[in-house]
Amino acid sequence: MRKFKLIVEYEGTAYHGWQCQPNGVTIQEVLQDTLGRITKKKTVVVSSSRTDSGVHAEAHPGHFVTDSRMTEIQFLKALNSLLPRDIVVKEVNEVPMEFNAQKSAKRKIYRYTILNRDFPSALQHRRCWFIQTPLDVEAMQDGARHLVGMHDFSAFRAANCENKNPVRELYRIEIGKQDHFIHMRFEGNGFLKHMVRNIVGTLVQVGKGKMESSQMTGILKSLDRNQAGPTAPSHGLCLVNVIYDADE
Amino acid sequence: MRKFKLIVEYEGTAYHGWQCQPNGVTIQEVLQDTLGRITKKKTVVVSSSRTDSGVHAEAHPGHFVTDSRMTEIQFLKALNSLLPRDIVVKEVNEVPMEFNAQKSAKRKIYRYTILNRDFPSALQHRRCWFIQTPLDVEAMQDGARHLVGMHDFSAFRAANCENKNPVRELYRIEIGKQDHFIHMRFEGNGFLKHMVRNIVGTLVQVGKGKMESSQMTGILKSLDRNQAGPTAPSHGLCLVNVIYDADE
Repeated sequence: MRKFKLIVEYEGTAYHGWQCQPNGVTIQEVLQDTLGRITKKKTVVVSSSRTDSGVHAEAHPGHFVTDSRMTEIQFLKALNSLLPRDIVVKEVNEVPMEFNAQKSAKRKIYRYTILNRDFPSALQHRRCWFIQTPLDVEAMQDGARHLVGMHDFSAFRAANCENKNPVRELYRIEIGKQDHFIHMRFEGNGFLKHMVRNIVGTLVQVGKGKMESSQMTGILKSLDRNQAGPTAPSHGLCLVNVIYDADE
Repeated sequence: MRKFKLIVEYEGTAYHGWQCQPNGVTIQEVLQDTLGRITKKKTVVVSSSRTDSGVHAEAHPGHFVTDSRMTEIQFLKALNSLLPRDIVVKEVNEVPMEFNAQKSAKRKIYRYTILNRDFPSALQHRRCWFIQTPLDVEAMQDGARHLVGMHDFSAFRAANCENKNPVRELYRIEIGKQDHFIHMRFEGNGFLKHMVRNIVGTLVQVGKGKMESSQMTGILKSLDRNQAGPTAPSHGLCLVNVIYDADE
């Protein structure tokens, strides 16, 4: 048997997130079905992360095990010739059997995009959250500062998040504005369900002046989801990259 | 009566081009219907350009005449609250009655985007022509040089183009490469039907080494559509801007 690492780019608009589920088409399902057609065997793709319905990815890693004798480039070409246009495999690399796309992941990087002006964008509407109210970016940066570090992020995870350990380390949050787009970049050792979207939704309340940036510490310490702001919509979120030991 | 100039951004994927036609939904039709709902009167939108089915626009100007007493900002908000997400009005400005979005246009700028690498892009697939064969960008730049200036562009217009005057002035063609994307920017006093797409299709033949860049002059002089290359697909094309006297 051989193991391959995949890097997948997708526009999540048409999908019910990464992970297979009974109620809709998912990225994992489409990839597995396509690998099944290529290798003529049922193939499971294990991934670094589960993304929500509608979330996009520039580089979402996964791995699969196969007894196929195909080369990396043959897999790349075969997958992209069969996949729909909104899912593309950017890299296929054979990896040691001990590599695990989920367990070996060291750092994950997400970006959330807000469009903040009087009118929406026709060309970017699938990939940003349009907010008409002017946002105070400096206040949002100040609020974000309180969240960096190792914390119990219970206040910022989905009510139905099943992860037993709510502690994560956020290495960095960068918030910048360019041409009416506010880009928020989150880098951490892992993220709980809805964690980025709940942080964004809360920082937007700060940006609108409905919360103070100094409240972030209290919300974090409360461990209470009801203290934080609403969940930002999924279509502004993109998984940018996942870093493994070998990448560093 | 008052006259308003509109600047429209759209993703053309779902539309049969700008101009109203019996066989499909067009940008003009959607805009006119929406203005009709707002003003309660049939309203015609006159445009600078006709775009083909699937072509996009960052800033496509038009004008309309109305006896409505609404302000510019009221039109902007009302239009964007009713338009589908892939059509957005970026600006509404009241203009003198002598302004004409079609006849007053001085310069038009189009951009064509090619993705040139081993695999396509899931996030950009609606907006670029994916070509796997490596293209010689310098040869394409060299070929483009021969087309700049005032010429009879009959060799590069659609067989069914009905325009009586096939002479146009191309002020500039800029071709650059960034991260596997080849951007081709065309600036001229006007463009014939399929003219940009036919020039791109021909320059791609040059980039593939199937034509010499020096052949461009002969093709231009032949006035014969059959001498030029195939028509590039519409989804790589975007109307970037139209310049009027008042803008300069």
